Amino acid sequence: MNEKRPWVYAGSFDPVTNGHLDIIKRAAEICDKLIVGVLVNQNKTYTFDQREREDMLKTVTNNLKNVEIESFSGLLVNFLHKHDSNVIIKGLRAISDYEYELQMAHLNRYVDENVETLFLMSSLNNNYISSGMVKEVGSFGGDISGLVPKEIVERVQKRIMK
Amino acid sequence: MNEKRPWVYAGSFDPVTNGHLDIIKRAAEICDKLIVGVLVNQNKTYTFDQREREDMLKTVTNNLKNVEIESFSGLLVNFLHKHDSNVIIKGLRAISDYEYELQMAHLNRYVDENVETLFLMSSLNNNYISSGMVKEVGSFGGDISGLVPKEIVERVQKRIMK
Amino acid sequence: MNEKRPWVYAGSFDPVTNGHLDIIKRAAEICDKLIVGVLVNQNKTYTFDQREREDMLKTVTNNLKNVEIESFSGLLVNFLHKHDSNVIIKGLRAISDYEYELQMAHLNRYVDENVETLFLMSSLNNNYISSGMVKEVGSFGGDISGLVPKEIVERVQKRIMK
Amino acid sequence: MNEKRPWVYAGSFDPVTNGHLDIIKRAAEICDKLIVGVLVNQNKTYTFDQREREDMLKTVTNNLKNVEIESFSGLLVNFLHKHDSNVIIKGLRAISDYEYELQMAHLNRYVDENVETLFLMSSLNNNYISSGMVKEVGSFGGDISGLVPKEIVERVQKRIMK
Amino acid sequence: MNEKRPWVYAGSFDPVTNGHLDIIKRAAEICDKLIVGVLVNQNKTYTFDQREREDMLKTVTNNLKNVEIESFSGLLVNFLHKHDSNVIIKGLRAISDYEYELQMAHLNRYVDENVETLFLMSSLNNNYISSGMVKEVGSFGGDISGLVPKEIVERVQKRIMK
Amino acid sequence: MNEKRPWVYAGSFDPVTNGHLDIIKRAAEICDKLIVGVLVNQNKTYTFDQREREDMLKTVTNNLKNVEIESFSGLLVNFLHKHDSNVIIKGLRAISDYEYELQMAHLNRYVDENVETLFLMSSLNNNYISSGMVKEVGSFGGDISGLVPKEIVERVQKRIMK
Repeated sequence: MNEKRPWVYAGSFDPVTNGHLDIIKRAAEICDKLIVGVLVNQNKTYTFDQREREDMLKTVTNNLKNVEIESFSGLLVNFLHKHDSNVIIKGLRAISDYEYELQMAHLNRYVDENVETLFLMSSLNNNYISSGMVKEVGSFGGDISGLVPKEIVERVQKRIMK
Repeated sequence: MNEKRPWVYAGSFDPVTNGHLDIIKRAAEICDKLIVGVLVNQNKTYTFDQREREDMLKTVTNNLKNVEIESFSGLLVNFLHKHDSNVIIKGLRAISDYEYELQMAHLNRYVDENVETLFLMSSLNNNYISSGMVKEVGSFGGDISGLVPKEIVERVQKRIMK
Repeated sequence: MNEKRPWVYAGSFDPVTNGHLDIIKRAAEICDKLIVGVLVNQNKTYTFDQREREDMLKTVTNNLKNVEIESFSGLLVNFLHKHDSNVIIKGLRAISDYEYELQMAHLNRYVDENVETLFLMSSLNNNYISSGMVKEVGSFGGDISGLVPKEIVERVQKRIMK
Repeated sequence: MNEKRPWVYAGSFDPVTNGHLDIIKRAAEICDKLIVGVLVNQNKTYTFDQREREDMLKTVTNNLKNVEIESFSGLLVNFLHKHDSNVIIKGLRAISDYEYELQMAHLNRYVDENVETLFLMSSLNNNYISSGMVKEVGSFGGDISGLVPKEIVERVQKRIMK
Repeated sequence: MNEKRPWVYAGSFDPVTNGHLDIIKRAAEICDKLIVGVLVNQNKTYTFDQREREDMLKTVTNNLKNVEIESFSGLLVNFLHKHDSNVIIKGLRAISDYEYELQMAHLNRYVDENVETLFLMSSLNNNYISSGMVKEVGSFGGDISGLVPKEIVERVQKRIMK
Repeated sequence: MNEKRPWVYAGSFDPVTNGHLDIIKRAAEICDKLIVGVLVNQNKTYTFDQREREDMLKTVTNNLKNVEIESFSGLLVNFLHKHDSNVIIKGLRAISDYEYELQMAHLNRYVDENVETLFLMSSLNNNYISSGMVKEVGSFGGDISGLVPKEIVERVQKRIMK
């Protein structure tokens, strides 16, 4: 029993979508504390920089008491160790997700055999949403208000229209 | 936060395999209390009757303090309500599992939108094991000692050879 | 161009679900005339007999002017020939559906190379619904009013409770 | 009923393959008018420029009376609106296609809920053909005459050998 | 190196289809000797009895010098041992096949870790053919001459029309 | 029968992993001679250059008598022709692999209809390993000694830490 150990939900959140927020809310209902890890990968180009991604997450999870936002780089398992966590939570949208995430879950258990990955299915209404699609729809002037949390709609729209 | 609410792992366990036991052990590490629900479906014929299936599960989980075994029939969600649980835990072996289990997870949320299903991947070594395959291998005199917990190998072998 | 040729949507409809009705409505928007073929297979046992299945379909499609209900047995392609149709419409819920339906589509083209199968994805909210699941939920006293059209909820509930 | 509304088949067609042409021919048999939309994405590098891709499509669909070729950029749904179309036709080759296309179909319905996507399976003989593979085979001097329409074999070969 | 050890291709062959025969021919090109194992499962009902299934296979493989037909029951691995074989050859049609066959391959390696399973993809034209579909098409008077080897068309047709 | 014709196993091997080596060993048990083809693609950037990739493969297959290492560029089928081979061997890890490899297998049969592709499933313990993951784990200082053959652990670690 690990009543006190937090769970970790990691991603790029470039930007956070309704799909991400749904997983955060549902995971936070089940665990004691949820740490949202914002991945910073030097080799990747982001639309929103680290501070903006963190900031948008904080804005939309403001009312969730047991959720914390923190950036990390390097191996996810090391980030878990830092927080004495042994559970990774993952949202699943589709088959291809599933295959890749299964591989990652086995890899993470190779790095630390005590780390478990728990998969939570996407809600039906968020099943097709990804950060990339938000940016594609928004960049052509499409309405993204059903794809990202309402608090950040304007902010995201402004950035991707530039 | 639901520190006190148990999780439920349900199945036929006809008989319990190393794959089932692995999921039980790993889930019990993460949650406070795990209730293993033994499905009793009047329309199905089992190789082992309800008492035997329960009994084998009790034998192999004897040393797990936060695991309880209990039979149920009817809707799984009703079984959760009875125990004030809101989390179903599922082991995943393969794609076809995944598809079916996803459908069941959505159905269970239709019945009660507060019920979450968490998926845990099978360990690599248990990925191919199912109760049906245990019975097929065993019924032709194949060695099943790597497929079911050692405490019940003899018992299972005896039954399926008849 | 075949402006005048009808499309066919076939199934067991035992009973018709919200998922079926959604496909019927959306297909009827695209084609000139949609014939819903109710499969009668002598080797299968149905919960609702042919007349009941037809009758429920007629009730729920009553307001759709270009939809007709008709039972058939034997090869689907022969049913198309009878109605001078060359298009089969299929709803897709999941991967396993897809694989099987693809095989059937190729088989139907083997029987008649001019027959095309068009696939329409299930709406997100109907993605998990099947006739079998309706019966499972209903038989244990679960609420099926979100799974089948409202006009037949009572009728279906009554039958599967027996 | 929308007897008069055209269907849209969109892609990069860089270059058009036998697989694309097969879908165009079969879709044109079913609908009144088919508009082939040639995607122009500023962020992508094409082997053949917009005019060449359009031109090759016109050459190979020359004898199909109800097929029109037109380039577009931006959201596909906007291209449909311009032509008063509400149906996207898609060819499906494989599972991974299916997953991605399903996501796109749901996204397109998010943008306009009246837009339907109809999926048509690839013919068995075209199931493995993609523009990328045509270019890979051709660039090493392999014979591509079974992969692209005969009218453009020489033209494609010449370009990708350079 | 096992130049002298035969390969085994097993199935029910109820009846043998063009898909089966294609795999047999292609496997026989690669290995020294191919043993086709006709599964006899007491718990299953076959349309053609053991002798008929064997006989049809012998008829259609008559001109293949390194192919032998033999019935077996029980574990496939035991059948391999009897023939000093360590290779199972499997034809793959689709994803669902793949999942199941992968599980069986791992199970067979559990029973004997020296047994390898080699997968050969179905030819495009045989991708949708199964014994079950042959029987469905034929039982309604459909033409099966493109689905089973020509030597047995009449024989199969006669039986399934009864 | 082609007792004398070699089989070909091709890839980038950037670097060779335990997963690759497992397939090489198992394939070498079944065929007379196995040629491992190291792909040199001018348009790709490798972590290890051609000579290093070849050299690591030679080191780890040193004790396998019927295995040869050779680099190639261009069409795989041409590489087979050069060695009078007609069999490609492929390791399969997951569904997405399978889809892509099936497409490649059909393409290779288009180029030469006598070329067969045989698929061998990954061992359970190597199912999640890829060259990319080795580099990701190693670049953050993770332990890769369970992912690549022991003879090259140090060499790989040194390179990817730079």
